[in-house]
Amino acid sequence: MRMVDLIAKKRDGHELNKQEIDFIIEGYTSKEIPEYQMSAFSMAIFFQGMTKDERVYLTDAMVKSGDVINLSEIEGIKVDKHSTGGVGDTTTLVLAPLVAAVGVPVAKMSGRGLGHTGGTIDKLESVPGFHVELSNDEFVRLVNENKIAVIGQSANLTPADKSLYGLRDVTATVDSIPLIASSIMSKKIAAGADAIVLDVKTGDGAFMKKLDDASDLADAMVDIGNGVGRKTMAIISDMSQPLGFAVGNALEVKEAIDTLVGKGPKDLHELCLTLGSHMVMLAGKAKDTEEARKMLVEVMESGAALEAFKTFLTSQGGDASVIDDPTKLPTAIHTIEVAAKTSGYISKIIADQIGTAAMLLGAGRATKESEIDLSVGLVLKKKIGDFVQTGESLVTIHANSEKVEEVIQLIYDAYSIVEKPVEAPTLIYKEIVK
Amino acid sequence: MRMVDLIAKKRDGHELNKQEIDFIIEGYTSKEIPEYQMSAFSMAIFFQGMTKDERVYLTDAMVKSGDVINLSEIEGIKVDKHSTGGVGDTTTLVLAPLVAAVGVPVAKMSGRGLGHTGGTIDKLESVPGFHVELSNDEFVRLVNENKIAVIGQSANLTPADKSLYGLRDVTATVDSIPLIASSIMSKKIAAGADAIVLDVKTGDGAFMKKLDDASDLADAMVDIGNGVGRKTMAIISDMSQPLGFAVGNALEVKEAIDTLVGKGPKDLHELCLTLGSHMVMLAGKAKDTEEARKMLVEVMESGAALEAFKTFLTSQGGDASVIDDPTKLPTAIHTIEVAAKTSGYISKIIADQIGTAAMLLGAGRATKESEIDLSVGLVLKKKIGDFVQTGESLVTIHANSEKVEEVIQLIYDAYSIVEKPVEAPTLIYKEIVK
Repeated sequence: MRMVDLIAKKRDGHELNKQEIDFIIEGYTSKEIPEYQMSAFSMAIFFQGMTKDERVYLTDAMVKSGDVINLSEIEGIKVDKHSTGGVGDTTTLVLAPLVAAVGVPVAKMSGRGLGHTGGTIDKLESVPGFHVELSNDEFVRLVNENKIAVIGQSANLTPADKSLYGLRDVTATVDSIPLIASSIMSKKIAAGADAIVLDVKTGDGAFMKKLDDASDLADAMVDIGNGVGRKTMAIISDMSQPLGFAVGNALEVKEAIDTLVGKGPKDLHELCLTLGSHMVMLAGKAKDTEEARKMLVEVMESGAALEAFKTFLTSQGGDASVIDDPTKLPTAIHTIEVAAKTSGYISKIIADQIGTAAMLLGAGRATKESEIDLSVGLVLKKKIGDFVQTGESLVTIHANSEKVEEVIQLIYDAYSIVEKPVEAPTLIYKEIVK
Repeated sequence: MRMVDLIAKKRDGHELNKQEIDFIIEGYTSKEIPEYQMSAFSMAIFFQGMTKDERVYLTDAMVKSGDVINLSEIEGIKVDKHSTGGVGDTTTLVLAPLVAAVGVPVAKMSGRGLGHTGGTIDKLESVPGFHVELSNDEFVRLVNENKIAVIGQSANLTPADKSLYGLRDVTATVDSIPLIASSIMSKKIAAGADAIVLDVKTGDGAFMKKLDDASDLADAMVDIGNGVGRKTMAIISDMSQPLGFAVGNALEVKEAIDTLVGKGPKDLHELCLTLGSHMVMLAGKAKDTEEARKMLVEVMESGAALEAFKTFLTSQGGDASVIDDPTKLPTAIHTIEVAAKTSGYISKIIADQIGTAAMLLGAGRATKESEIDLSVGLVLKKKIGDFVQTGESLVTIHANSEKVEEVIQLIYDAYSIVEKPVEAPTLIYKEIVK
């Protein structure tokens, strides 16, 4: 087999078989297939796409390129959740303890990553003492005992995907649905989940701006998951404005605490119940989503969900007293209100600009080397459809510097205010269950 | 400017401007743009093509990437000829002295290359003593004195094309008309020609199997040539069977000698007169191709064309007595006739197989390191449309080894013989003059 012939085969629109895709990914991982062939191959995929079978083979080959986490010692069906990302997405912090509280084992591998705010681990590190340096045995023991634990990403998880993603990033081959889908799914599958719930975002603040593209991606991922024998479903949710109110690390932890007791922002609350009920369903803990939803509302109201969060934090070295006294979380020195210049209804909040504003404050990483400031961020006071009076606050800035002119400007640019009433956007567009 | 953005621009079907294409080729030549970006870019071109302007910019940028030969000290309009290659293509050996004999300056830069037989220089080296190691001054002086000289290819001619061609070869991006056209044209333009006559081959033995593809390529090259201010025209000629009779180095020199006095194979004779008359026209030596053709026939018949060949060989150290006594050319030990197994009309001669047979005998290079045997090769006795009796020779093998079973088999496989009469293929399909 020669790579050049396989590139030509894909270029000419023919289907590659499992043996051929294995050859490519094994060769690329061992560096026998050079970057310049892999980038030409990726561009050919950009134009010719991949069949359902090819996507499964590719994902499977990437999974096999590195470590595959074995969660078999954990009792029950391990359900993982993945979100394609957006601004102010606090769902993981809420969902993990929420579904754990109804007995779904959450064995979560999480990362730091770049972006507007830190990753899940960064956010959790707002809790003094919390850490993710667990041995595999400890991790398994904690999930069996508490139904919840989080560890850092294994260095050798899907190395083929890691290399390929880096290459795609500099060769204009990122925007390919089969490549995006197999990249995401390979990581989830290698991390050991039995079942996967996907939250695919759409709208201005999402990677997939258009609903059709988000649907195609969700569809592709669900097919891959089911194709490799992991029950997978997806929902398509709104990212035309930031999710919830808080955009920042400690600020999102606080918002998660509120949401765990049923007092979170309406959209975050609703999204967590929807995603959560599918997780509970896939874990076999409820006969339908209605029943699952009732169970989740119950543990919110009884305090059991918050209790699960406390146990989880304590088990991994965290000071759980922050839950009862959130002032113990990292807190910024200054709070600045951004006052509306006119009265009217909020018609638009450009999520990306809100995200950039948070990053400027120090809430996220621009490069791998950037230090995160866990205390800073934004809290939205008004969301799309809300009415605002002139002078009323649109956003509260939590900052450790008084130089926030640029941040304020970004916020003003992000908000549009109109005279006539505006409807709040649909939160959940679609559920994809196959 | 970032290469990744330019790849995306081409990928999305937008037109690149001159500045952008210069940036790409300069960056690639200086190795600031890595191979993996260039291969993704090439694959994007494969799918999206290039506009007329883009092709001109690309060719021009590749020309500028290395040395550009200055032929301004040579009097007259320097016309170069390029053939896209095939089996038994002896035209250059004939055309150079032929048009020189009517006063067209031929300042030819030629190569060795891989293939069924050697390149023009290899073939000329069949003449004892002949060499192409000329200083630039000598080269110019010889063309001014004799109207003809041949030198070897400059090491630093179009280095961007050299690198890009090597990359395309291993990334399945060879078959792209804009890339092929600009590759060929950049070399011709850098070699200093004022005007260019292109012989684009089509048929089983050519790179472009289909007439439409050959036409598209010819069209693209003519546009590029004219676009950079070099008068360019093309003809599309047949390569459904080998051209002429001889396939081999010394054997082709002998055939060239015959053709220079008007006694060559009909197809080679006709093709040389057609290409030659266009060269004479472009050089401004005749008012139309009819007049040009007459001039060429005249120098064939008068012996002036053969005289020009002698002078040329002598001037570059060659023993011109081989022309009157071709037995002085390298001669193979064995000649073996391949006899027809049935009677009938020749309906097909697979040119590639005849070429491979010649290479097996040692006439061509399989790799850069291969040694060429100048004496060996094949002489076709029958061509498409000819009648053959059982036992009559189809091909004479000139070999230095008696082990020619494989060669004989290839020849039998290449020939098809049918009962009913067959017409000889059209030799010249099209002329493209803009």
